[in-house]
Amino acid sequence: MKKTQVAILGCTGIVGQHFIRLLEDHPDFHLAALAASSRSIGKRAVEAVDWAIEGDFPAHLHAMEISSPAAADLRARGVRVVFSALPSDVAAQVEPQLAAADLAVFSNAGFHRTAAAVPVIIPEVNAEHFALARRQKESGAGFVVTNSNCCVSGLVMVLKPLLPLGLRSVQVTTFQSISGAGRRGLPALDINANLVPFIRSEEEKMEREVRKILGWVDETGITELDLDINASCCRVPVREGHTESLVLEFADEVTPQRVEEALSAFCGLPQELGLPTAPRRAVIVRAEENRPQPLLDVYAGTPERARGMAVTVGRIRRKGRRINLFLLVHNLVRGAAGTCVLNAELALRQGLLA
Amino acid sequence: MKKTQVAILGCTGIVGQHFIRLLEDHPDFHLAALAASSRSIGKRAVEAVDWAIEGDFPAHLHAMEISSPAAADLRARGVRVVFSALPSDVAAQVEPQLAAADLAVFSNAGFHRTAAAVPVIIPEVNAEHFALARRQKESGAGFVVTNSNCCVSGLVMVLKPLLPLGLRSVQVTTFQSISGAGRRGLPALDINANLVPFIRSEEEKMEREVRKILGWVDETGITELDLDINASCCRVPVREGHTESLVLEFADEVTPQRVEEALSAFCGLPQELGLPTAPRRAVIVRAEENRPQPLLDVYAGTPERARGMAVTVGRIRRKGRRINLFLLVHNLVRGAAGTCVLNAELALRQGLLA
Amino acid sequence: MKKTQVAILGCTGIVGQHFIRLLEDHPDFHLAALAASSRSIGKRAVEAVDWAIEGDFPAHLHAMEISSPAAADLRARGVRVVFSALPSDVAAQVEPQLAAADLAVFSNAGFHRTAAAVPVIIPEVNAEHFALARRQKESGAGFVVTNSNCCVSGLVMVLKPLLPLGLRSVQVTTFQSISGAGRRGLPALDINANLVPFIRSEEEKMEREVRKILGWVDETGITELDLDINASCCRVPVREGHTESLVLEFADEVTPQRVEEALSAFCGLPQELGLPTAPRRAVIVRAEENRPQPLLDVYAGTPERARGMAVTVGRIRRKGRRINLFLLVHNLVRGAAGTCVLNAELALRQGLLA
Amino acid sequence: MKKTQVAILGCTGIVGQHFIRLLEDHPDFHLAALAASSRSIGKRAVEAVDWAIEGDFPAHLHAMEISSPAAADLRARGVRVVFSALPSDVAAQVEPQLAAADLAVFSNAGFHRTAAAVPVIIPEVNAEHFALARRQKESGAGFVVTNSNCCVSGLVMVLKPLLPLGLRSVQVTTFQSISGAGRRGLPALDINANLVPFIRSEEEKMEREVRKILGWVDETGITELDLDINASCCRVPVREGHTESLVLEFADEVTPQRVEEALSAFCGLPQELGLPTAPRRAVIVRAEENRPQPLLDVYAGTPERARGMAVTVGRIRRKGRRINLFLLVHNLVRGAAGTCVLNAELALRQGLLA
Repeated sequence: MKKTQVAILGCTGIVGQHFIRLLEDHPDFHLAALAASSRSIGKRAVEAVDWAIEGDFPAHLHAMEISSPAAADLRARGVRVVFSALPSDVAAQVEPQLAAADLAVFSNAGFHRTAAAVPVIIPEVNAEHFALARRQKESGAGFVVTNSNCCVSGLVMVLKPLLPLGLRSVQVTTFQSISGAGRRGLPALDINANLVPFIRSEEEKMEREVRKILGWVDETGITELDLDINASCCRVPVREGHTESLVLEFADEVTPQRVEEALSAFCGLPQELGLPTAPRRAVIVRAEENRPQPLLDVYAGTPERARGMAVTVGRIRRKGRRINLFLLVHNLVRGAAGTCVLNAELALRQGLLA
Repeated sequence: MKKTQVAILGCTGIVGQHFIRLLEDHPDFHLAALAASSRSIGKRAVEAVDWAIEGDFPAHLHAMEISSPAAADLRARGVRVVFSALPSDVAAQVEPQLAAADLAVFSNAGFHRTAAAVPVIIPEVNAEHFALARRQKESGAGFVVTNSNCCVSGLVMVLKPLLPLGLRSVQVTTFQSISGAGRRGLPALDINANLVPFIRSEEEKMEREVRKILGWVDETGITELDLDINASCCRVPVREGHTESLVLEFADEVTPQRVEEALSAFCGLPQELGLPTAPRRAVIVRAEENRPQPLLDVYAGTPERARGMAVTVGRIRRKGRRINLFLLVHNLVRGAAGTCVLNAELALRQGLLA
Repeated sequence: MKKTQVAILGCTGIVGQHFIRLLEDHPDFHLAALAASSRSIGKRAVEAVDWAIEGDFPAHLHAMEISSPAAADLRARGVRVVFSALPSDVAAQVEPQLAAADLAVFSNAGFHRTAAAVPVIIPEVNAEHFALARRQKESGAGFVVTNSNCCVSGLVMVLKPLLPLGLRSVQVTTFQSISGAGRRGLPALDINANLVPFIRSEEEKMEREVRKILGWVDETGITELDLDINASCCRVPVREGHTESLVLEFADEVTPQRVEEALSAFCGLPQELGLPTAPRRAVIVRAEENRPQPLLDVYAGTPERARGMAVTVGRIRRKGRRINLFLLVHNLVRGAAGTCVLNAELALRQGLLA
Repeated sequence: MKKTQVAILGCTGIVGQHFIRLLEDHPDFHLAALAASSRSIGKRAVEAVDWAIEGDFPAHLHAMEISSPAAADLRARGVRVVFSALPSDVAAQVEPQLAAADLAVFSNAGFHRTAAAVPVIIPEVNAEHFALARRQKESGAGFVVTNSNCCVSGLVMVLKPLLPLGLRSVQVTTFQSISGAGRRGLPALDINANLVPFIRSEEEKMEREVRKILGWVDETGITELDLDINASCCRVPVREGHTESLVLEFADEVTPQRVEEALSAFCGLPQELGLPTAPRRAVIVRAEENRPQPLLDVYAGTPERARGMAVTVGRIRRKGRRINLFLLVHNLVRGAAGTCVLNAELALRQGLLA
C-alpha cells in the first residue's frame, strides 16, 4: 500500500519534535514536508529544530528545507494530511485555509476546540465524533480534527470507563510538567525548585473539553455531558508527564476493585483495529503503593511505537463513598502528538483520507 | 525577667536545626542543652549537626557538647522545658519519662497525637486545648503538648475561620516538599525531576488531626469535629513549603470575597498577646493570579522572628457552589519547630511553665 | 547629609530587582526613578516587575510609574546617578547619552568593558581604576563605570591576593546558575535536571576581563596583566550562585595554608572606609570538607546589607606544585547589582558624584 | 551455543538494576541467580528491588527468590560467572571467596582496584591487562576483574587515543550525577537545587586508576603511566551521566581537528570482535556548540544493546597550546554495569570462562 504524504506544521517546537519522532518509519504515513513560522522557512531542518527530546533528530531529515505552511507549498510536495503543532493564534490563521484547500488537518490548536463543527477526539473514548469530520468534508474540501488539552486526554480515558458505574462528580488537581508550556514557554527561574499554582485558562479548558468529549453527536452537533467537574491546575518541576489527583463521586457506592477492573478492561477502536500507534492496554493500573511516577511511568505503553500512549493509574482507594486515585499521562504523546497521529490512523482506516 | 532554661531533643535533624535557629536570642528561653541519639552524644555540636538550612550554625553553640535526652542529664543543666524533634519511635520511649520527671515537653512526635490526654495545638486555632495540658499537670509531674502534622498546621489555620461560614466538606491535595521527609529521609534518586504520589500514613493523619484540632475539650476529653475531609498526598521536588489545593463546600453559597475577608481577619491569642514568634497576620491572602509559590512565599510572616509562621493563601475562586483555593505553609516552621516554640511561649504566659 | 537621587534602568529584570532590594533604605542613595524598556513605560511598577527574588517587592514602590530611560526624564526627577541593568544592546544606545548629559552611570552592560576609557571595577581589587572615570569626567559631562562579568567578580577577588605569592597560571571551570541568564533568558526545558556546557562568549569575556581588572592604569590607559588564564563554562540547575573550580600554578611552591591566609586577610578600600554595602570580610574561607555550596553559602556576607557580597572559598588543597580550590560568588549581588552599588558608594566618598 | 550461567550480586542497588536490564535476553549469558545482602535474601525479587531506572523490572524475574552471595548457593544454581555491584566493604569479604571457589568475578568494587594482581579494564583501552586475570587463574581457581571508577571509564576512553599525540598533562573537573552515589546514597536535601564540590576519595581514585589503566603489564605486574593528572570532583543535580571538563596539554601543539579525528577513529577489541554490548563507535564527537548534555546524550551508543556505552565529546577547542573539551559518560552503564558485562563478553571470547 502506498503511504499517505504528510506534513508537520510547527516542527520546531516540542510537540513538533514528537511528531517527527512518531512519524519516522511510520507504516501508513510518509513525512514529505516540515513547516514552521517565517523565522525558520528556508533553513535546513537540523538548524531550525533545537532538539530537546529523547533520541536524536533523524539523520535523513537533517537537510530537509523548512517549508512555509501555505497550502500551495504543501500540495506541491504531495501532502494530503497535515499534523499541526502551531501556536493557537497562528493556527487560527493557517489551518482553516488548509482545510479549505482540501487538506485533512489534525491539529493541537486550542482555538478549534470550542467550535461546534470541530470534534475533539481521543479515539478510545469518542471515535464516533468523527461524524463531525465527515460533515465538514461533505460541506466541501478538507476537515479539521483536534485532540484535546494535554491533561484532558488522560482524564477522559479514566472517566469514560467509569461512567457506567454511576460517576457523577470529578474533582481534579493537576501536577503539570514543564514541557506542557512548550519548548521555550517557561523561564527556568519560574519553576526551578518551585511550583506555580496557575496555568492560564487551563482549568476552564479542562472542564469544558471533558464535557464535550464525553458528549454525543446528533444531527445538530454535540450535546455535552452534564458532568460536575472541578479542576485546579499547578505546574511542577517535572520534565514530561502530567499527574492528576482525582476525587470521584458515584451515584451508588463503588469498590476500588470495580474501578480497577473497569479501567484495566478499557479499550476502544484503536485497540480493536490494531492501529500502529495504539497501546495494547489503554490504561495500566499499577498495584504498587507509590505509583504512578513520571520518571518511571511516563513512557508506558507497548509496542515500542506506542510508548507514552498508555495512561497509568495508581492508588485507587475508597474514601467514604468516594474513590480517590492518581493518574499519569504523557502530555506530549498521549496528550498531543501521539493522539493526533492515532486520530489520523483511524481516519485513514475509516476512509476519511481517501 | 529570668529566661526559662530549655533543651532541644533531636537537634541534628532538619526540625532540630530550625529549633536552634528559632531559639537563638529568644526573649523568653535560653538554650541550655542540645540532645540527640546515642550516635551523637558527647560530640561537639558543630560536628554532630550537618547544617542544611539558611544561615549558619550559631558560632556560640559550636563547642556545646551533645547531651543525652535523659531527664537527669537535662535537669543537671537546669532544663525546665524540652522541645523535641525526636523520631516518633524514640520519642515514644523518651518523652513520657521526661514528663514524668516534671519537665514540660513540646513535641513534634506523631505518636502522641492520637492520645486522648495529649492536645494537638496550633495556638491561633485551639489554644483552649491547653486545658488538657493542665489536666496532665494536675495528675502530677510535667506534661506533653504536641503540634500537628506539618500539612495540618496550615490547613486548620485556613479552615478555622471558614467554619462560621458553613464549611461542611474539604477535599485537599498536597504538594509536599522534600524537607518534610527529614534530613536524610528521602533519597535524591526518588525525587529528582520526579514526584511521588504517596507518603505513608499521611492522608490518614491529616484527616484525623484536623478533626481533633477543630474539636472541643470537655470534661471527658476531646470531642472531634464531624467534618467531611478527604486528603490526597504527593511529594514534589521543592525544598521547603507544603502547598495544598483545596476544594471547599459550604452549607450555603459563599463568595470568594467573604472567604478572603474571613482569612485576612483571622487571628488568635498569639497575635492578641504579641507572642515573640507570632506573625502579625496569621494568614496572608495574595491577590496575584499565580501565588502562593514556595520559593517566594514560604518564609512569609513578620516580624523577623516570625518568618515562615504565616500561611499564604491565593487563587480563591468560586467553582459553582464550591470555593477552590491554594495555600502554602512552611512545613518546618509553622508545621513543626515554629509552632512548637509558639506553644511554649503561650504556655509560659498562661503560667503553665511555672 | 542629603541623599543622592538615583535611578534604576532595566528595573524589571533579575538584576534590576536586586538593585531595588539593595537601594531600599540606602543610607547614601534615594531611589527617585525606575526605568525600563518601552513595553513597561507608564505602567505601575508592581505591574511591570515580575518579582522573582527573596522578599517582597517593596510596598512603597508599587505605585511608582515606570519612567523612560531618557536623560531628560531622569533629570526631571532629580536623578544624578544611574544604576543600569539594561540588556547590552539597549545599553549601548542609552548609556553614552546619559553620560553625555552629565549623569554618572554605573552599568552592568558588557559592551563597555572592552572600551579603553571605561574601567571595570571590583572595588576591593582595583579601586585605583576610578582614575579612568575621572578622566572621562574631565573630558566633559558624566562618566561610565562598569562592574565585571558575574563569574569574574568572584574570580578576581580570589586571584588578587594570590598574585604576590607568584601566581602565574589559572585554569577555571564554572558551574553557573540559571539566574545568570536573566529573568527569562533560559527555557526551563533546557536546564531542568540537565546541564549545558556552553554559555555564549562567556569564556572569552572571563579571560579578557580578568586581565584588564588586574592590570594597571597609566597615562595612556590600562595595561593588562599578562596572566595565563583558561576558562571552561557550564550552566547547571542551581538558582543563584556561580561556583568555580580553580587550578592555580605558582612560580614557586605555595602551601594551602599560605593561600588560606592570603585570602582570609584580603580586604580593600570598601572595608577600610566601611562602605554600607561592603562585607566585613571580602573572602570567607570555609574549613568544612564539602563547602562552598550555593544553597548554604550564596548569601555570605555581613552586615545584613552586605549579604551576598562575600566570596566563599573552600577545599584549598595541594596537588603537586599546584593549588586546587572551589569558590562561590553570588552572581546577581557581588557579580552584578551589589558591586555596582558598592562602586557608587566608593565614587561618592571620593567626590566623583559631586 | 549454550549460554553461560551468571549471577548478579547486589541486585537491589542502582548498578544491580542496570545489570538486570543488560542481561535480559543476553546472547551469551543466562541470568541464573540474583543475590543481595541478608536483608533481602529469601524475598521475591520484585519485593526486594525498588526499581528506579527506565523500563520495568522484567516480569519473568518477579518471582525469582533472592539468593545469598555464598559460593555454594551460586554454584548450586549452576553459576559460573558473577557480576558484582556489592558495596566495597561487603565485596571485600565475599568476592575473594567466590574467586577461590573457581568463579569468575566481574566486580565494580573499588577495593580491588589497588591490588597489583587485579586488572582494572575498560576493554577498548587496555584489553591486554586480561593477562593479569590469566595469571590469577593459573595460580588456581577463578579470578577477579574490575572495571574502573565511573568517571575514569569515560576519561580513559578519551585519553587513550590522545597519548600518541603527545599528551602530557590532564586537568579534569567533574559534574557528577546523583546516581553515582547509589540507590539511596545521597539525601535529596543535600543536592536539590544545589551542588556539592566534594565526593569522598573520588579525586584520588581518578588520578590513581587512570595511571594504572593506561600502564602496561609485564612479568612483575603493572607499571603505571607517569601522567600528570589533577582531578576536582563535584556532585550536581543531574540524574544520570557524569560530565567532565578537560584541559589537556601536549608536548607539541595539536589542533582540535587532530584531536577530533583521533577520538572519532578510536576503537578496540570490542568493536573488532563485534561483542554484543560494544558500541559501534566508542567515542562520539558532537559538532553542536552546546553538547554533550546529559539529558540528550547520556544513552549514546548503538545498537540498542549498547545504549549508554558510547562516550560523547564536544566543544573541542584550542586555548593557546592547550586543548579544552567536555566529555559525558553514563556512569551506571559505561561507568559500571555495561563495561562489566563487556569485560565478561571479551573474557568469554578469549576462553577465560571455559
